[in-house]
Amino acid sequence: MATPTPALKDELDIVIPTIRNLDFLEMWRPFFQPYHLIIVQDGDPSKTIKVPQGFDYELYNRNDINRILGPKANCISFKDSACRCFGYMVSKKKYIYTIDDDCFVATNPSGQQINALEQHIKNLLCPSTPFFFNTLYEPYREGADFVRGYPFSLREGVPTAVSHGLWLNIPDYDAPTQLVKPLERNTRYVDAVMTIPKGTLFPMCGMNLAFDRDLIGPAMYFGLMGDGQPIGRYDDMWAGWCCKVICDHLGLGIKTGLPYIYHSKASNPFVNLRKEYKGIFWQEDIIPFFQSIVLPKEATTVQKCYIVLAKLVKEKLSKVDPYFDKLADAMVTWIEAWDELNPAGASLANGKK
Amino acid sequence: MATPTPALKDELDIVIPTIRNLDFLEMWRPFFQPYHLIIVQDGDPSKTIKVPQGFDYELYNRNDINRILGPKANCISFKDSACRCFGYMVSKKKYIYTIDDDCFVATNPSGQQINALEQHIKNLLCPSTPFFFNTLYEPYREGADFVRGYPFSLREGVPTAVSHGLWLNIPDYDAPTQLVKPLERNTRYVDAVMTIPKGTLFPMCGMNLAFDRDLIGPAMYFGLMGDGQPIGRYDDMWAGWCCKVICDHLGLGIKTGLPYIYHSKASNPFVNLRKEYKGIFWQEDIIPFFQSIVLPKEATTVQKCYIVLAKLVKEKLSKVDPYFDKLADAMVTWIEAWDELNPAGASLANGKK
Repeated sequence: MATPTPALKDELDIVIPTIRNLDFLEMWRPFFQPYHLIIVQDGDPSKTIKVPQGFDYELYNRNDINRILGPKANCISFKDSACRCFGYMVSKKKYIYTIDDDCFVATNPSGQQINALEQHIKNLLCPSTPFFFNTLYEPYREGADFVRGYPFSLREGVPTAVSHGLWLNIPDYDAPTQLVKPLERNTRYVDAVMTIPKGTLFPMCGMNLAFDRDLIGPAMYFGLMGDGQPIGRYDDMWAGWCCKVICDHLGLGIKTGLPYIYHSKASNPFVNLRKEYKGIFWQEDIIPFFQSIVLPKEATTVQKCYIVLAKLVKEKLSKVDPYFDKLADAMVTWIEAWDELNPAGASLANGKK
Repeated sequence: MATPTPALKDELDIVIPTIRNLDFLEMWRPFFQPYHLIIVQDGDPSKTIKVPQGFDYELYNRNDINRILGPKANCISFKDSACRCFGYMVSKKKYIYTIDDDCFVATNPSGQQINALEQHIKNLLCPSTPFFFNTLYEPYREGADFVRGYPFSLREGVPTAVSHGLWLNIPDYDAPTQLVKPLERNTRYVDAVMTIPKGTLFPMCGMNLAFDRDLIGPAMYFGLMGDGQPIGRYDDMWAGWCCKVICDHLGLGIKTGLPYIYHSKASNPFVNLRKEYKGIFWQEDIIPFFQSIVLPKEATTVQKCYIVLAKLVKEKLSKVDPYFDKLADAMVTWIEAWDELNPAGASLANGKK
């Protein structure tokens, strides 16, 4: 079954946490120029980000975030790329693509430039199959299908909420692995897209990520990271764990695999270690926590699920560290802010379920 | 982490259901000749199978099966490639590789012949990671690792019990899909190996399959298919579902992906439809049945798990069709026959857990 690949020009925003690299947008110009960009500046608001001519964009710095959200702005991380989730909240589009400014256009094994956005759109428009594993990977892809033994009743699939793309060159490793394998590069192009099965958690990376705001937006909260927080580099992970349990509960799918981007430079492993080390301990409790979550039947919208999740985080993870108490509060604030900025979206999401 | 690839010459048997195709062994000679072959003839015992010079093999026909198993021989399918599981039972080796005689040596995208057996051995000797998804696929492969956010406590992995290889050219489709897409060929070489997550069922194909007899052998029963049975082409599926729930319960892993073989010819879709059509209905009940299974703590060996499974099949699936009542009995007979032929193995398996 071939899938259409409309440009979705009027239905997709590209959210970029900040742009330090001037080549970044030039390199992506042929692919990104048709789209609206939302740039969320993660550092000093007095510094100006230069956006090359020809791009349609809006830019938010910390002053804007404070002005728009008022006291609720405290749920948005400061001096950390986790602030990008503010962009998800202010967007009015159905789809979001988010990418880091050190991610360039990759080439496939035939030497052709990969249109990452086009593949993400394909992934999002195509159903997911979380209830049973298909050994030939994405069954809806051209030249593939469901294999013998795949139950026919499950072949319709479910809506896809998230498309998680991968990275050539510098792999997304934690600080310890970076330190141990400083020279490792990902050169393996795996020509596959697949649904992450129901009940299985995965490490969602925010470097090259697309999602359907209407379906899962309110769960794409990147937490409290960076300045004033005891942890960093777990923003996308946190969002991924929350999204996965909510998608599993609501019958939505998450895909991973294609498209690749070219991740140009490794972040400093020493800095990363400092940001990560608490997370490395904490995740040993966080993962079993998320694995054990059973959301109640009454949680029929993403918002309702997320509020339940916040409550459970407070109940079960506060004993790991007081940070989780603060995070649980911020999760609630995030939903309040989301619903304030998306009143139609909120009622749409409520009405849909 | 690089994995060793010993030949395992004295630890692996190749089990082939029957050999109709004389080119088959010639083509595989460079790869298979060092190994011992067990050929289980699925049809008329008076016909002689020609095995080319230079291969070390033993051949069993129906008369041999009847002689060796006596009344218990009724658990082995007749006139169906499902009879191959008799070969798993009589082998005395730790590892089994089973392959169909219409599967030839495939080539990778660089044009090199793929040593399927070597890749299966790599897969089996390398741990599995069923508790959390790694987005860069097999974390133990050269050039790959666990990505950021993968819990460190889960990086040791668990022993791998099954290695499920794939097929280029003719994909393993059911009859309805064959009929709808007669010209579809699998040309996509996906350069990946991955663990099928815990709690997720998959359609296990017996065309290109390796496993660790010590770890999972007694669950590799290919059921009652073919002559005198209302169903065919669900032999490997049945074994796959049983193996998966038992592996999940015992903390063992199942890998899928590489290696590819070249599947040369599609079986007749009309014949297949006749064999399959009951299975197509039944699996709509069988899958929820397997998804709901919780094995008891006391089931600490494969044999014990399998006996519990047989009991559950009788209890829950007999109402779908009386066939399952017969199958449940055959499952028990199979375990009795296995333990009779593998007294040391049986006690080893018991002692190990």
